Amino acid sequence: MARVITFLSDYGHDDDFVGVCHGVMARITPDARVIDLTHGIPRHDVRSGAMVLRRALPYCPPGVHLAVVDPEVGGARRAVALRTGEEDHLLVGPDNGLLSLAAQRLGGAVEAVDIGRSPHRLEPVSATFHGRDLFAPVAAQLAAGAPLAGAGDPIDPAELVHLDMPLAHADGDELVAHAIGFDRFGNVMLDLEHTELTASGLRLGRELLVNGEPVRYATTFTDVPAGELLLYEDAYRTLALAVNRGSAASHLGLERDAEVRIRPA
Amino acid sequence: MARVITFLSDYGHDDDFVGVCHGVMARITPDARVIDLTHGIPRHDVRSGAMVLRRALPYCPPGVHLAVVDPEVGGARRAVALRTGEEDHLLVGPDNGLLSLAAQRLGGAVEAVDIGRSPHRLEPVSATFHGRDLFAPVAAQLAAGAPLAGAGDPIDPAELVHLDMPLAHADGDELVAHAIGFDRFGNVMLDLEHTELTASGLRLGRELLVNGEPVRYATTFTDVPAGELLLYEDAYRTLALAVNRGSAASHLGLERDAEVRIRPA
Amino acid sequence: MARVITFLSDYGHDDDFVGVCHGVMARITPDARVIDLTHGIPRHDVRSGAMVLRRALPYCPPGVHLAVVDPEVGGARRAVALRTGEEDHLLVGPDNGLLSLAAQRLGGAVEAVDIGRSPHRLEPVSATFHGRDLFAPVAAQLAAGAPLAGAGDPIDPAELVHLDMPLAHADGDELVAHAIGFDRFGNVMLDLEHTELTASGLRLGRELLVNGEPVRYATTFTDVPAGELLLYEDAYRTLALAVNRGSAASHLGLERDAEVRIRPA
Repeated sequence: MARVITFLSDYGHDDDFVGVCHGVMARITPDARVIDLTHGIPRHDVRSGAMVLRRALPYCPPGVHLAVVDPEVGGARRAVALRTGEEDHLLVGPDNGLLSLAAQRLGGAVEAVDIGRSPHRLEPVSATFHGRDLFAPVAAQLAAGAPLAGAGDPIDPAELVHLDMPLAHADGDELVAHAIGFDRFGNVMLDLEHTELTASGLRLGRELLVNGEPVRYATTFTDVPAGELLLYEDAYRTLALAVNRGSAASHLGLERDAEVRIRPA
Repeated sequence: MARVITFLSDYGHDDDFVGVCHGVMARITPDARVIDLTHGIPRHDVRSGAMVLRRALPYCPPGVHLAVVDPEVGGARRAVALRTGEEDHLLVGPDNGLLSLAAQRLGGAVEAVDIGRSPHRLEPVSATFHGRDLFAPVAAQLAAGAPLAGAGDPIDPAELVHLDMPLAHADGDELVAHAIGFDRFGNVMLDLEHTELTASGLRLGRELLVNGEPVRYATTFTDVPAGELLLYEDAYRTLALAVNRGSAASHLGLERDAEVRIRPA
Repeated sequence: MARVITFLSDYGHDDDFVGVCHGVMARITPDARVIDLTHGIPRHDVRSGAMVLRRALPYCPPGVHLAVVDPEVGGARRAVALRTGEEDHLLVGPDNGLLSLAAQRLGGAVEAVDIGRSPHRLEPVSATFHGRDLFAPVAAQLAAGAPLAGAGDPIDPAELVHLDMPLAHADGDELVAHAIGFDRFGNVMLDLEHTELTASGLRLGRELLVNGEPVRYATTFTDVPAGELLLYEDAYRTLALAVNRGSAASHLGLERDAEVRIRPA
């Protein structure tokens, strides 16, 4: 039986882009199951795509993971396929950092090929739709059992583009984190996970100061009165800031990558 | 072969919530087919979810039906799985009434378990994403053949939360129905099905008064002139009010659950 | 194994229309794989649906192709299933031209049946949801191996409704094309494909006049300065007009089906 393929993109659902990629894959490997992770990544937002892929893939079966958020399609960026160190996941997509956070989470890239001239590609390759002509066919061939080494030219995994993300760290009795994501409610995702907080050895307690503002370390929104700030773990065990029935981003005046200094009150 | 799983939620398609639940299920039962009924239920609207599930499930194969519209996630509401009296359907979701209308339609719940501490759940269970950590794994295990009794602690099906819906009834020569749903065109769905109308013994004829306004009992919108009211059966054989090229909700000033009195003109 | 079914419609994702059709098909043929091509066709836009189907199906496996954009549902239009001359594709949908462009691309309709009274339909057939009651069951039965001839009453393929589309042609040293589609960025799709341009024998060169305006024949948007017009091949090898960081539709004042005269500068 063919392997599972997961598929993430910024293609949206208004057009037939996603459906055509499914068609291409079904021609190559009719019995592979394809799971749409999401196609709602904001257009061309490589970093959002990379963060979603990092948090979603650990919940997915080992298999082939196709990801396309590709603002430089048709330009000089490489197209790649890689194997991770854990559980034998194969990732396929543009080499713009989109795959890098997930690969890191899954044991790092241990083998990689440049698929720009892959024998699996559909000729003629269009200038703008590499999802259909390049990435989907390579993913489907890998799911059908084709070897990674045959999908392209070998490259050193260390040369893959890695996203330049801010990095939380301790600074004396403070934790210095960053606002790396926002949702539509104004909740602010930090670059800090529960395990890292524990590992840091810092004992924060329940009452904190975040950029000088009083914040409670709480479990759910309703643990604080309306209008007040809380620090909590979201469903992916990542720390996040919220205001109960309000916007933490506005309240704290945070923009993307802004520093968030956390200390006991 | 594993059983079919259907999946309904208010998760929408912008995020990876739906895709991650698919991933979780595919890890457990790679060969189960998952059918997305819809993920467009208005956020936290349990009653809309329950009504859609009731009308959709009779068209689906017997199997496992996962439904998540869960405004009290992480709170005191129970999480349940139940078996219906007809066709051996298994329903999985929060015990907030979401499953109740469909269960009633499918012969009633004849066996139920509280899955809050199910051995199938993914640890650690997050406070906010029970779709991923609790409901999807239980649904997948059931689809793979795990027994319902082993999915949780037995509860009396009579104790499951049932939605408090208005109920159409006869009042002398009038039918008293209610406006239970609205679509974006202002069409008004009533709590009255064709079979109930027939069973009521009331002979309405073609020309009616609805809350005192003249209405024609018609087959399609174009049976009445633009701007005029009609009562018709929608695609689910439920009675509905419309204005040809207009809004019946505005025309009649109807809000949710408002009384709709129908009599011959 | 059952054949692949592709599915295109204007149903959108807010409601359960798509999911219920999937349920109906899964009851009939549980092991058929269903590929959603798109459900984002603008409501009732038969021509857009037909153009998307034409460009998408050549990338899909041979199988059954279900398409529903059906503004006259419940009216006098026929419902049909047909076989194409190439690769044994079966198309199912309303006979309003929706299937005609794809059928033409795939070798033409060589056999057709009127499925309005198909033995495969779900009784009672509703007035408004033929996707569920008629088209999906017929598609699923065909995918399961039922013969086309048994799905309805034979009709002459030459009598199927064909879309009346404008047709590009040469006029002296000019190519006369038409604006047949617009995207949300104001890019204008023409009724002219790369192969037709080559076949026309016209040598356009790089610098053109389009309706009297200077236009460059280029590969990508960034080949021209911001605000300037280009003619390019889109991902389906169809010629299109764009303005780098602007709207070609506005710039040239083009409406649907407007004439677009192309000549060397």
